[in-house]
Amino acid sequence: MSNLIDGRAIAQQIHTETGRRVASLKDRGITPGLVFIRVGEDPASQVYVGMKEKKSAELGIRSVTRVLPSATSEADLLALIGQLNADPQWHGILVQAPLPRHIDQSTVYAHVAPSKDVDGFHPLNVGKLMLGDADGFIPCTPGGVHELLVRSGVKLEGAEVVVLGRGNIVGKPMASILLQKGKNANSTVTVVHSGTRDVAGHCRRADVLIAAMGVPEFVKADMVKPGAVVIDVGVNRVPDASAKSGTRLVGDVAFAEVQPVAGLITPNPGGVGPMTIAMLLANTARAAESAGR
Amino acid sequence: MSNLIDGRAIAQQIHTETGRRVASLKDRGITPGLVFIRVGEDPASQVYVGMKEKKSAELGIRSVTRVLPSATSEADLLALIGQLNADPQWHGILVQAPLPRHIDQSTVYAHVAPSKDVDGFHPLNVGKLMLGDADGFIPCTPGGVHELLVRSGVKLEGAEVVVLGRGNIVGKPMASILLQKGKNANSTVTVVHSGTRDVAGHCRRADVLIAAMGVPEFVKADMVKPGAVVIDVGVNRVPDASAKSGTRLVGDVAFAEVQPVAGLITPNPGGVGPMTIAMLLANTARAAESAGR
Repeated sequence: MSNLIDGRAIAQQIHTETGRRVASLKDRGITPGLVFIRVGEDPASQVYVGMKEKKSAELGIRSVTRVLPSATSEADLLALIGQLNADPQWHGILVQAPLPRHIDQSTVYAHVAPSKDVDGFHPLNVGKLMLGDADGFIPCTPGGVHELLVRSGVKLEGAEVVVLGRGNIVGKPMASILLQKGKNANSTVTVVHSGTRDVAGHCRRADVLIAAMGVPEFVKADMVKPGAVVIDVGVNRVPDASAKSGTRLVGDVAFAEVQPVAGLITPNPGGVGPMTIAMLLANTARAAESAGR
Repeated sequence: MSNLIDGRAIAQQIHTETGRRVASLKDRGITPGLVFIRVGEDPASQVYVGMKEKKSAELGIRSVTRVLPSATSEADLLALIGQLNADPQWHGILVQAPLPRHIDQSTVYAHVAPSKDVDGFHPLNVGKLMLGDADGFIPCTPGGVHELLVRSGVKLEGAEVVVLGRGNIVGKPMASILLQKGKNANSTVTVVHSGTRDVAGHCRRADVLIAAMGVPEFVKADMVKPGAVVIDVGVNRVPDASAKSGTRLVGDVAFAEVQPVAGLITPNPGGVGPMTIAMLLANTARAAESAGR
Protein backbone atom coordinates (compact mmCIF):
# COMPACT_ATOMS: atom_id res chain seq x y z
CA MET A 1 0.00 0.00 0.00
CA SER A 2 1.25 3.42 -0.86
CA ASN A 3 2.17 5.71 1.97
CA LEU A 4 1.87 8.82 -0.20
CA ILE A 5 -0.38 11.73 0.68
CA ASP A 6 -1.91 12.75 -2.62
CA GLY A 7 -1.94 16.54 -2.50
CA ARG A 8 -3.38 16.85 -5.99
CA ALA A 9 -6.41 14.70 -5.12
CA ILE A 10 -7.06 16.50 -1.83
CA ALA A 11 -6.63 19.89 -3.48
CA GLN A 12 -9.18 18.77 -6.07
CA GLN A 13 -11.66 17.86 -3.31
CA ILE A 14 -11.29 21.37 -1.94
CA HIS A 15 -11.63 22.94 -5.37
CA THR A 16 -14.88 21.00 -5.86
CA GLU A 17 -16.18 22.29 -2.53
CA THR A 18 -15.12 25.84 -3.39
CA GLY A 19 -16.78 25.57 -6.80
CA ARG A 20 -20.06 24.68 -5.06
CA ARG A 21 -19.71 27.65 -2.70
CA VAL A 22 -19.06 29.94 -5.66
CA ALA A 23 -22.13 28.60 -7.47
CA SER A 24 -24.24 29.18 -4.39
CA LEU A 25 -22.90 32.77 -4.11
CA LYS A 26 -23.75 33.37 -7.75
CA ASP A 27 -27.29 32.13 -7.12
CA ARG A 28 -27.49 35.01 -4.65
CA GLY A 29 -26.13 37.46 -7.22
CA ILE A 30 -22.60 37.60 -5.81
CA THR A 31 -19.60 36.82 -8.02
CA PRO A 32 -16.49 36.33 -5.91
CA GLY A 33 -13.76 38.64 -7.17
CA LEU A 34 -10.02 38.23 -6.64
CA VAL A 35 -7.37 40.77 -7.65
CA PHE A 36 -3.76 39.82 -8.14
CA ILE A 37 -1.13 42.53 -7.96
CA ARG A 38 2.18 41.81 -9.56
CA VAL A 39 5.06 44.31 -9.46
CA GLY A 40 7.79 43.85 -12.06
CA GLU A 41 8.40 40.93 -14.38
CA ASP A 42 9.68 38.13 -12.13
CA PRO A 43 9.19 35.04 -14.33
CA ALA A 44 8.21 32.71 -11.45
CA SER A 45 5.61 35.23 -10.27
CA GLN A 46 4.15 35.34 -13.74
CA VAL A 47 3.78 31.57 -13.72
CA TYR A 48 2.27 31.46 -10.20
CA VAL A 49 -0.24 34.21 -10.87
CA GLY A 50 -1.12 32.63 -14.19
CA MET A 51 -1.91 29.31 -12.45
CA LYS A 52 -4.02 31.06 -9.84
CA GLU A 53 -5.95 32.99 -12.49
CA LYS A 54 -6.65 29.87 -14.48
CA LYS A 55 -7.93 27.93 -11.47
CA SER A 56 -10.04 30.93 -10.36
CA ALA A 57 -11.72 30.96 -13.78
CA GLU A 58 -12.40 27.22 -13.59
CA LEU A 59 -14.22 27.67 -10.29
CA GLY A 60 -16.20 30.70 -11.43
CA ILE A 61 -14.20 33.27 -9.47
CA ARG A 62 -13.70 36.48 -11.41
CA SER A 63 -10.07 37.53 -11.29
CA VAL A 64 -7.91 40.23 -12.76
CA THR A 65 -4.18 40.88 -12.52
CA ARG A 66 -2.88 44.39 -12.10
CA VAL A 67 0.70 44.51 -13.34
CA LEU A 68 2.81 47.42 -12.14
CA PRO A 69 6.27 48.33 -13.45
CA SER A 70 9.15 47.34 -11.18
CA ALA A 71 9.94 51.03 -10.62
CA THR A 72 6.53 51.61 -8.98
CA SER A 73 6.91 53.48 -5.70
CA GLU A 74 5.67 52.00 -2.44
CA ALA A 75 3.25 54.92 -2.13
CA ASP A 76 1.70 54.18 -5.52
CA LEU A 77 1.32 50.51 -4.65
CA LEU A 78 -0.31 51.39 -1.33
CA ALA A 79 -2.64 53.80 -3.12
CA LEU A 80 -3.75 51.07 -5.51
CA ILE A 81 -4.36 48.69 -2.60
CA GLY A 82 -6.39 51.43 -0.90
CA GLN A 83 -8.62 51.75 -3.96
CA LEU A 84 -9.12 48.01 -4.20
CA ASN A 85 -9.86 47.83 -0.45
CA ALA A 86 -12.71 50.28 -1.01
CA ASP A 87 -14.08 48.59 -4.15
CA PRO A 88 -16.85 46.11 -3.21
CA GLN A 89 -16.49 44.05 -6.39
CA TRP A 90 -13.17 42.65 -5.10
CA HIS A 91 -13.44 40.25 -2.17
CA GLY A 92 -9.82 39.18 -2.11
CA ILE A 93 -6.56 40.99 -2.81
CA LEU A 94 -3.30 39.12 -3.29
CA VAL A 95 0.04 40.90 -3.66
CA GLN A 96 2.40 38.42 -5.28
CA ALA A 97 5.84 38.10 -3.67
CA PRO A 98 8.62 38.90 -4.26
CA LEU A 99 8.34 42.69 -4.41
CA PRO A 100 11.15 44.94 -5.63
CA ARG A 101 13.67 45.79 -2.93
CA HIS A 102 12.61 49.40 -2.52
CA ILE A 103 9.16 48.28 -1.35
CA ASP A 104 8.69 47.02 2.20
CA GLN A 105 6.74 43.79 2.10
CA SER A 106 5.36 44.04 5.66
CA THR A 107 4.04 47.54 5.03
CA VAL A 108 2.28 46.31 1.93
CA TYR A 109 0.73 43.26 3.61
CA ALA A 110 -0.50 45.39 6.50
CA HIS A 111 -2.21 47.74 4.04
CA VAL A 112 -4.54 45.13 2.56
CA ALA A 113 -7.94 45.29 4.29
CA PRO A 114 -7.98 42.39 6.78
CA SER A 115 -11.38 41.32 5.40
CA LYS A 116 -9.82 40.95 1.90
CA ASP A 117 -6.51 39.48 3.07
CA VAL A 118 -6.98 36.04 1.48
CA ASP A 119 -3.25 35.39 1.90
CA GLY A 120 -3.61 35.66 5.71
CA PHE A 121 -0.49 37.83 6.02
CA HIS A 122 -2.03 40.90 7.68
CA PRO A 123 -0.86 41.12 11.32
CA LEU A 124 -4.49 41.28 12.48
CA ASN A 125 -5.16 37.91 10.87
CA VAL A 126 -1.89 36.53 12.23
CA GLY A 127 -3.00 37.64 15.71
CA LYS A 128 -6.46 36.13 15.34
CA LEU A 129 -4.95 32.82 14.28
CA MET A 130 -2.70 32.82 17.34
CA LEU A 131 -5.60 33.74 19.64
CA GLY A 132 -7.74 30.91 18.26
CA ASP A 133 -10.25 33.33 16.74
CA ALA A 134 -11.69 31.50 13.72
CA ASP A 135 -12.85 34.78 12.26
CA GLY A 136 -9.53 35.56 10.52
CA PHE A 137 -7.90 34.22 7.37
CA ILE A 138 -5.36 31.42 7.67
CA PRO A 139 -2.26 31.64 5.45
CA CYS A 140 -2.66 29.32 2.50
CA THR A 141 0.36 27.04 2.81
CA PRO A 142 0.09 26.10 6.50
CA GLY A 143 -3.69 26.01 6.12
CA GLY A 144 -3.17 23.61 3.24
CA VAL A 145 -0.82 21.40 5.26
CA HIS A 146 -3.44 21.28 8.00
CA GLU A 147 -6.11 20.16 5.51
CA LEU A 148 -3.74 17.52 4.12
CA LEU A 149 -3.21 16.12 7.61
CA VAL A 150 -6.87 16.19 8.61
CA ARG A 151 -8.15 14.72 5.33
CA SER A 152 -5.51 11.98 5.47
CA GLY A 153 -6.87 10.92 8.87
CA VAL A 154 -3.74 11.87 10.83
CA LYS A 155 -4.54 12.08 14.52
CA LEU A 156 -3.29 15.49 15.58
CA GLU A 157 -4.73 15.56 19.10
CA GLY A 158 -1.87 14.79 21.48
CA ALA A 159 0.58 14.24 18.62
CA GLU A 160 4.17 15.38 18.99
CA VAL A 161 4.61 17.81 16.11
CA VAL A 162 7.95 19.27 15.12
CA VAL A 163 7.88 22.21 12.75
CA LEU A 164 11.23 22.80 11.03
CA GLY A 165 11.47 26.50 10.28
CA ARG A 166 9.99 29.62 11.84
CA GLY A 167 9.18 31.75 8.83
CA ASN A 168 6.21 34.10 8.95
CA ILE A 169 4.64 32.41 5.92
CA VAL A 170 4.75 28.78 7.03
CA GLY A 171 6.54 27.82 10.26
CA LYS A 172 4.99 30.26 12.73
CA PRO A 173 1.38 30.04 11.49
CA MET A 174 1.72 26.24 11.26
CA ALA A 175 2.60 26.16 14.97
CA SER A 176 -0.29 28.54 15.74
CA ILE A 177 -2.79 26.25 14.01
CA LEU A 178 -1.69 23.04 15.68
CA LEU A 179 -1.23 24.19 19.27
CA GLN A 180 -4.81 25.42 19.64
CA LYS A 181 -7.14 23.57 21.95
CA GLY A 182 -9.81 21.54 20.19
CA LYS A 183 -10.44 19.00 17.48
CA ASN A 184 -7.94 18.52 14.65
CA ALA A 185 -5.30 20.37 16.64
CA ASN A 186 -4.28 20.10 20.33
CA SER A 187 -0.82 18.92 19.27
CA THR A 188 2.33 19.40 21.32
CA VAL A 189 4.30 21.67 19.03
CA THR A 190 8.02 22.37 18.98
CA VAL A 191 9.40 24.93 16.55
CA VAL A 192 12.93 23.99 15.49
CA HIS A 193 15.17 26.40 13.59
CA SER A 194 18.69 27.49 12.75
CA GLY A 195 19.37 28.28 16.42
CA THR A 196 18.32 24.84 17.69
CA ARG A 197 21.03 22.73 19.33
CA ASP A 198 19.82 19.22 18.57
CA VAL A 199 17.72 19.41 15.43
CA ALA A 200 17.98 15.70 14.61
CA GLY A 201 17.00 14.73 18.15
CA HIS A 202 13.82 16.77 17.93
CA CYS A 203 13.00 15.38 14.51
CA ARG A 204 13.41 11.82 15.74
CA ARG A 205 10.77 12.20 18.44
CA ALA A 206 8.16 13.72 16.08
CA ASP A 207 4.93 11.90 15.24
CA VAL A 208 4.38 14.58 12.62
CA LEU A 209 7.37 16.30 11.05
CA ILE A 210 6.74 19.38 8.93
CA ALA A 211 9.77 20.59 7.00
CA ALA A 212 9.61 24.23 5.97
CA MET A 213 13.06 25.70 6.33
CA GLY A 214 14.16 25.85 2.73
CA VAL A 215 17.23 23.62 2.86
CA PRO A 216 17.43 21.07 0.02
CA GLU A 217 16.88 17.49 1.22
CA PHE A 218 17.71 18.40 4.81
CA VAL A 219 15.58 15.69 6.42
CA LYS A 220 17.33 12.33 6.11
CA ALA A 221 16.04 8.86 6.94
CA ASP A 222 17.88 8.69 10.26
CA MET A 223 16.09 11.85 11.44
CA VAL A 224 12.63 10.30 11.09
CA LYS A 225 10.90 8.07 13.62
CA PRO A 226 9.61 4.93 11.88
CA GLY A 227 5.94 5.44 11.07
CA ALA A 228 6.02 9.22 11.41
CA VAL A 229 4.04 11.50 9.11
CA VAL A 230 6.41 13.65 7.04
CA ILE A 231 5.23 16.80 5.27
CA ASP A 232 7.60 18.52 2.86
CA VAL A 233 6.87 22.20 2.30
CA GLY A 234 10.24 23.01 0.74
CA VAL A 235 10.73 24.22 -2.81
CA ASN A 236 14.45 24.55 -3.56
CA ARG A 237 16.17 24.90 -6.89
CA VAL A 238 19.44 22.97 -7.05
CA PRO A 239 21.99 22.55 -9.86
CA ASP A 240 21.47 19.48 -12.02
CA ALA A 241 23.76 19.03 -15.03
CA SER A 242 21.48 16.33 -16.48
CA ALA A 243 18.49 18.67 -16.65
CA LYS A 244 17.83 20.83 -19.68
CA SER A 245 17.54 23.98 -17.53
CA GLY A 246 20.65 22.99 -15.56
CA THR A 247 18.62 22.91 -12.35
CA ARG A 248 15.83 20.91 -10.72
CA LEU A 249 13.43 21.44 -7.84
CA VAL A 250 13.82 19.46 -4.63
CA GLY A 251 12.08 19.65 -1.29
CA ASP A 252 13.39 19.89 2.27
CA VAL A 253 13.07 16.11 2.62
CA ALA A 254 15.39 13.51 1.08
CA PHE A 255 12.33 11.74 -0.29
CA ALA A 256 13.86 8.54 -1.65
CA GLU A 257 15.45 7.54 1.65
CA VAL A 258 12.72 8.92 3.95
CA GLN A 259 9.73 7.35 2.23
CA PRO A 260 10.49 3.77 3.40
CA VAL A 261 10.72 4.98 7.02
CA ALA A 262 7.67 7.26 7.08
CA GLY A 263 4.13 6.17 7.87
CA LEU A 264 2.76 8.80 5.50
CA ILE A 265 4.68 11.27 3.38
CA THR A 266 3.95 13.99 0.86
CA PRO A 267 5.55 13.66 -2.55
CA ASN A 268 7.18 16.83 -3.82
CA PRO A 269 5.88 17.99 -6.24
CA GLY A 270 2.29 16.85 -5.86
CA GLY A 271 2.07 17.19 -2.08
CA VAL A 272 1.78 20.57 -0.40
CA GLY A 273 2.12 22.62 -3.59
CA PRO A 274 -1.38 22.12 -5.01
CA MET A 275 -2.91 22.88 -1.60
CA THR A 276 -1.76 26.49 -1.57
CA ILE A 277 -3.95 27.50 -4.51
CA ALA A 278 -6.82 25.42 -3.13
CA MET A 279 -6.72 27.30 0.17
CA LEU A 280 -6.38 30.66 -1.57
CA LEU A 281 -9.55 30.09 -3.55
CA ALA A 282 -11.38 28.69 -0.51
CA ASN A 283 -10.36 31.86 1.38
CA THR A 284 -11.68 33.94 -1.51
CA ALA A 285 -15.05 32.16 -1.40
CA ARG A 286 -15.13 32.81 2.34
CA ALA A 287 -14.33 36.49 1.87
CA ALA A 288 -17.23 36.79 -0.57
CA GLU A 289 -19.55 34.88 1.78
CA SER A 290 -18.64 37.23 4.65
CA ALA A 291 -19.06 40.33 2.50
CA GLY A 292 -22.44 39.08 1.22
CA ARG A 293 -23.87 38.48 4.66
CA MET B 1 24.70 31.54 47.06
CA SER B 2 21.02 32.07 46.52
CA ASN B 3 19.48 30.76 43.33
CA LEU B 4 16.50 33.10 43.60
CA ILE B 5 15.53 35.50 40.83
CA ASP B 6 14.54 38.66 42.67
CA GLY B 7 11.51 39.91 40.77
CA ARG B 8 11.01 42.84 43.11
CA ALA B 9 14.53 44.16 42.54
CA ILE B 10 14.35 43.73 38.76
CA ALA B 11 10.90 45.34 38.65
CA GLN B 12 12.36 48.25 40.62
CA GLN B 13 15.15 48.67 38.03
CA ILE B 14 12.51 48.90 35.32
CA HIS B 15 10.43 51.34 37.36
CA THR B 16 13.51 53.54 37.75
CA GLU B 17 14.09 53.47 33.99
CA THR B 18 10.42 54.22 33.33
CA GLY B 19 10.50 57.10 35.81
CA ARG B 20 13.39 58.63 33.86
CA ARG B 21 11.49 58.24 30.59
CA VAL B 22 8.44 59.89 32.13
CA ALA B 23 10.56 62.80 33.41
CA SER B 24 12.03 63.25 29.96
CA LEU B 25 8.55 63.25 28.41
CA LYS B 26 7.43 65.88 30.92
CA ASP B 27 10.43 68.04 29.96
CA ARG B 28 8.88 68.01 26.48
CA GLY B 29 5.46 68.95 27.86
CA ILE B 30 3.97 65.45 27.64
CA THR B 31 2.46 63.81 30.70
CA PRO B 32 1.86 60.12 30.07
CA GLY B 33 -1.76 59.29 30.83
CA LEU B 34 -3.18 55.86 31.66
CA VAL B 35 -6.89 55.06 32.06
CA PHE B 36 -8.09 52.03 33.94
CA ILE B 37 -11.58 50.74 33.27
CA ARG B 38 -13.13 48.56 35.90
CA VAL B 39 -16.59 47.02 35.47
CA GLY B 40 -18.34 45.89 38.63
CA GLU B 41 -16.94 45.48 42.14
CA ASP B 42 -14.69 42.43 41.95
CA PRO B 43 -12.54 42.80 45.11
CA ALA B 44 -9.34 41.45 43.53
CA SER B 45 -9.72 43.86 40.59
CA GLN B 46 -10.06 46.73 43.02
CA VAL B 47 -6.81 45.73 44.68
CA TYR B 48 -4.95 45.25 41.36
CA VAL B 49 -6.10 48.53 39.89
CA GLY B 50 -5.30 50.30 43.16
CA MET B 51 -1.72 48.98 43.04
CA LYS B 52 -1.31 50.05 39.43
CA GLU B 53 -2.67 53.52 40.16
CA LYS B 54 -0.33 53.96 43.10
CA LYS B 55 2.74 52.93 41.13
CA SER B 56 1.70 55.15 38.20
CA ALA B 57 1.55 58.13 40.53
CA GLU B 58 5.00 57.31 41.96
CA LEU B 59 6.49 57.39 38.46
CA GLY B 60 4.71 60.57 37.43
CA ILE B 61 2.17 58.90 35.14
CA ARG B 62 -1.24 60.50 35.39
CA SER B 63 -3.92 57.87 35.84
CA VAL B 64 -7.63 57.72 36.41
CA THR B 65 -9.98 54.82 36.98
CA ARG B 66 -13.37 54.76 35.34
CA VAL B 67 -15.64 52.48 37.34
CA LEU B 68 -18.74 51.19 35.58
CA PRO B 69 -21.61 49.32 37.23
CA SER B 70 -21.65 45.58 36.64
CA ALA B 71 -24.89 45.92 34.67
CA THR B 72 -23.15 48.11 32.05
CA SER B 73 -23.92 46.90 28.53
CA GLU B 74 -21.15 45.85 26.17
CA ALA B 75 -22.23 48.66 23.83
CA ASP B 76 -21.78 51.27 26.56
CA LEU B 77 -18.35 49.90 27.46
CA LEU B 78 -17.30 49.95 23.80
CA ALA B 79 -18.59 53.53 23.48
CA LEU B 80 -16.48 54.62 26.46
CA ILE B 81 -13.41 52.93 24.96
CA GLY B 82 -14.13 54.70 21.68
CA GLN B 83 -14.14 58.06 23.45
CA LEU B 84 -10.88 57.30 25.24
CA ASN B 85 -9.30 56.08 21.99
CA ALA B 86 -10.00 59.50 20.50
CA ASP B 87 -8.82 61.51 23.51
CA PRO B 88 -5.15 62.47 23.12
CA GLN B 89 -4.56 62.97 26.85
CA TRP B 90 -4.74 59.19 27.37
CA HIS B 91 -1.80 57.19 25.99
CA GLY B 92 -2.77 53.87 27.50
CA ILE B 93 -6.10 52.17 28.15
CA LEU B 94 -6.38 49.12 30.37
CA VAL B 95 -9.61 47.21 30.79
CA GLN B 96 -9.27 45.20 33.98
CA ALA B 97 -10.30 41.54 33.78
CA PRO B 98 -12.54 39.83 34.71
CA LEU B 99 -15.50 41.42 32.97
CA PRO B 100 -19.11 40.51 33.74
CA ARG B 101 -20.32 37.45 31.81
CA HIS B 102 -22.60 39.35 29.46
CA ILE B 103 -19.59 41.21 28.02
CA ASP B 104 -17.32 39.48 25.51
CA GLN B 105 -13.73 40.01 26.55
CA SER B 106 -12.20 39.53 23.08
CA THR B 107 -14.56 42.08 21.56
CA VAL B 108 -13.55 44.57 24.22
CA TYR B 109 -9.80 43.99 23.83
CA ALA B 110 -10.09 44.35 20.06
CA HIS B 111 -11.84 47.69 20.51
CA VAL B 112 -8.94 49.41 22.30
CA ALA B 113 -6.87 51.40 19.80
CA PRO B 114 -3.77 49.28 19.08
CA SER B 115 -1.59 52.34 19.76
CA LYS B 116 -3.06 52.58 23.30
CA ASP B 117 -3.21 48.84 23.98
CA VAL B 118 -0.63 48.78 26.79
CA ASP B 119 -1.88 45.34 27.82
CA GLY B 120 -0.83 43.94 24.42
CA PHE B 121 -4.09 42.00 24.03
CA HIS B 122 -5.31 43.49 20.74
CA PRO B 123 -5.06 40.90 17.94
CA LEU B 124 -3.03 43.36 15.87
CA ASN B 125 -0.39 43.52 18.60
CA VAL B 126 -0.55 39.75 19.06
CA GLY B 127 0.11 39.40 15.32
CA LYS B 128 3.00 41.87 15.35
CA LEU B 129 4.62 40.00 18.23
CA MET B 130 4.34 36.73 16.32
CA LEU B 131 5.73 38.30 13.14
CA GLY B 132 8.72 39.73 15.02
CA ASP B 133 7.59 43.32 14.42
CA ALA B 134 8.94 45.28 17.39
CA ASP B 135 6.45 48.03 16.73
CA GLY B 136 3.63 46.44 18.76
CA PHE B 137 3.01 46.14 22.49
CA ILE B 138 4.07 42.98 24.27
CA PRO B 139 1.69 41.58 26.91
CA CYS B 140 2.93 42.51 30.36
CA THR B 141 3.33 39.14 32.04
CA PRO B 142 5.30 37.29 29.32
CA GLY B 143 7.17 40.52 28.60
CA GLY B 144 8.05 40.62 32.30
CA VAL B 145 9.21 37.01 32.32
CA HIS B 146 11.43 37.79 29.35
CA GLU B 147 12.98 40.75 31.18
CA LEU B 148 13.53 38.59 34.28
CA LEU B 149 15.38 36.03 32.19
CA VAL B 150 17.49 38.55 30.28
CA ARG B 151 18.39 40.64 33.32
CA SER B 152 19.31 37.50 35.26
CA GLY B 153 21.82 36.62 32.54
CA VAL B 154 20.03 33.49 31.36
CA LYS B 155 21.33 32.46 27.96
CA LEU B 156 18.23 32.11 25.82
CA GLU B 157 19.91 31.63 22.43
CA GLY B 158 19.76 27.92 21.65
CA ALA B 159 18.13 27.10 24.99
CA GLU B 160 15.49 24.41 25.18
CA VAL B 161 12.46 26.25 26.55
CA VAL B 162 9.29 24.50 27.65
CA VAL B 163 6.25 26.69 28.21
CA LEU B 164 3.60 24.98 30.31
CA GLY B 165 0.25 26.40 29.27
CA ARG B 166 -1.09 27.92 26.05
CA GLY B 167 -3.27 30.73 27.33
CA ASN B 168 -3.63 33.89 25.26
CA ILE B 169 -2.33 36.03 28.13
CA VAL B 170 0.89 34.16 28.97
CA GLY B 171 1.69 30.87 27.24
CA LYS B 172 1.20 31.78 23.59
CA PRO B 173 2.86 35.22 23.67
CA MET B 174 5.70 33.76 25.77
CA ALA B 175 6.38 31.27 22.97
CA SER B 176 6.15 34.05 20.37
CA ILE B 177 8.78 36.12 22.18
CA LEU B 178 11.31 33.35 22.62
CA LEU B 179 11.17 31.67 19.21
CA GLN B 180 12.10 34.83 17.29
CA LYS B 181 15.45 35.00 15.58
CA GLY B 182 17.94 37.30 17.24
CA LYS B 183 19.55 38.22 20.52
CA ASN B 184 17.86 37.36 23.81
CA ALA B 185 15.58 34.90 22.04
CA ASN B 186 16.34 32.23 19.40
CA SER B 187 15.24 29.53 21.83
CA THR B 188 13.81 26.18 20.80
CA VAL B 189 10.32 26.43 22.20
CA THR B 190 7.83 23.67 22.98
CA VAL B 191 4.36 24.58 24.19
CA VAL B 192 3.04 21.90 26.52
CA HIS B 193 -0.60 21.80 27.61
CA SER B 194 -3.54 19.71 28.80
CA GLY B 195 -3.48 17.69 25.56
CA THR B 196 0.23 16.77 25.84
CA ARG B 197 1.03 13.07 26.23
CA ASP B 198 4.27 13.21 28.20
CA VAL B 199 4.29 16.48 30.12
CA ALA B 200 6.93 15.38 32.63
CA GLY B 201 9.24 14.16 29.85
CA HIS B 202 9.13 17.54 28.15
CA CYS B 203 9.70 19.36 31.44
CA ARG B 204 12.74 17.23 32.22
CA ARG B 205 14.54 18.22 29.02
CA ALA B 206 13.97 21.97 29.52
CA ASP B 207 16.85 24.37 30.16
CA VAL B 208 14.20 26.98 30.92
CA LEU B 209 10.83 25.88 32.27
CA ILE B 210 8.05 28.45 32.39
CA ALA B 211 4.97 27.31 34.31
CA ALA B 212 1.80 29.16 33.39
CA MET B 213 -1.03 26.70 33.38
CA GLY B 214 -2.75 27.57 36.64
CA VAL B 215 -2.48 24.24 38.46
CA PRO B 216 -1.32 24.56 42.08
CA GLU B 217 2.22 23.21 42.61
CA PHE B 218 2.07 21.16 39.43
CA VAL B 219 5.82 21.20 38.77
CA LYS B 220 7.58 18.76 41.12
CA ALA B 221 11.29 18.24 41.69
CA ASP B 222 11.45 15.11 39.53
CA MET B 223 10.13 17.09 36.55
CA VAL B 224 13.05 19.52 36.58
CA LYS B 225 16.47 18.97 35.04
CA PRO B 226 19.18 19.77 37.59
CA GLY B 227 20.39 23.30 36.99
CA ALA B 228 17.36 24.38 34.93
CA VAL B 229 15.88 27.85 35.21
CA VAL B 230 12.33 27.65 36.59
CA ILE B 231 9.86 30.52 36.23
CA ASP B 232 6.58 30.32 38.11
CA VAL B 233 3.80 32.45 36.62
CA GLY B 234 0.98 30.73 38.51
CA VAL B 235 -1.26 32.42 41.04
CA ASN B 236 -3.63 29.86 42.58
CA ARG B 237 -5.75 30.19 45.69
CA VAL B 238 -5.90 26.94 47.67
CA PRO B 239 -7.65 26.06 50.94
CA ASP B 240 -5.51 26.44 54.06
CA ALA B 241 -7.16 25.85 57.41
CA SER B 242 -4.23 27.46 59.25
CA ALA B 243 -4.68 30.80 57.41
CA LYS B 244 -6.96 33.48 58.76
CA SER B 245 -8.75 33.77 55.40
CA GLY B 246 -8.97 29.98 55.09
CA THR B 247 -6.93 30.10 51.87
CA ARG B 248 -3.45 30.90 50.66
CA LEU B 249 -1.81 31.66 47.33
CA VAL B 250 0.51 29.16 45.69
CA GLY B 251 2.20 29.05 42.31
CA ASP B 252 2.34 26.38 39.62
CA VAL B 253 5.67 25.18 41.03
CA ALA B 254 6.16 23.13 44.22
CA PHE B 255 8.77 25.66 45.28
CA ALA B 256 10.21 23.96 48.39
CA GLU B 257 11.16 20.77 46.57
CA VAL B 258 12.07 22.35 43.22
CA GLN B 259 14.38 25.08 44.53
CA PRO B 260 17.22 22.67 45.46
CA VAL B 261 17.17 21.17 41.94
CA ALA B 262 16.89 24.41 39.96
CA GLY B 263 19.79 26.55 38.80
CA LEU B 264 17.67 29.68 39.11
CA ILE B 265 14.09 29.97 40.27
CA THR B 266 11.52 32.69 40.86
CA PRO B 267 10.02 32.86 44.31
CA ASN B 268 6.25 33.26 44.35
CA PRO B 269 5.26 35.86 45.45
CA GLY B 270 8.13 38.17 44.64
CA GLY B 271 9.06 36.70 41.27
CA VAL B 272 6.95 37.29 38.18
CA GLY B 273 4.19 39.22 39.98
CA PRO B 274 5.98 42.56 40.38
CA MET B 275 7.13 42.46 36.75
CA THR B 276 3.62 42.73 35.34
CA ILE B 277 3.07 46.25 36.69
CA ALA B 278 6.61 47.23 35.70
CA MET B 279 5.99 46.22 32.09
CA LEU B 280 2.58 47.91 32.05
CA LEU B 281 4.09 51.23 33.03
CA ALA B 282 7.02 50.80 30.65
CA ASN B 283 4.47 50.16 27.87
CA THR B 284 2.62 53.32 28.92
CA ALA B 285 5.80 55.39 28.69
CA ARG B 286 6.39 53.91 25.24
CA ALA B 287 2.85 54.73 24.13
CA ALA B 288 3.40 58.35 25.19
CA GLU B 289 6.79 58.47 23.47
CA SER B 290 5.24 57.18 20.23
CA ALA B 291 2.31 59.60 20.44
CA GLY B 292 4.69 62.51 21.13
CA ARG B 293 6.85 61.82 18.12
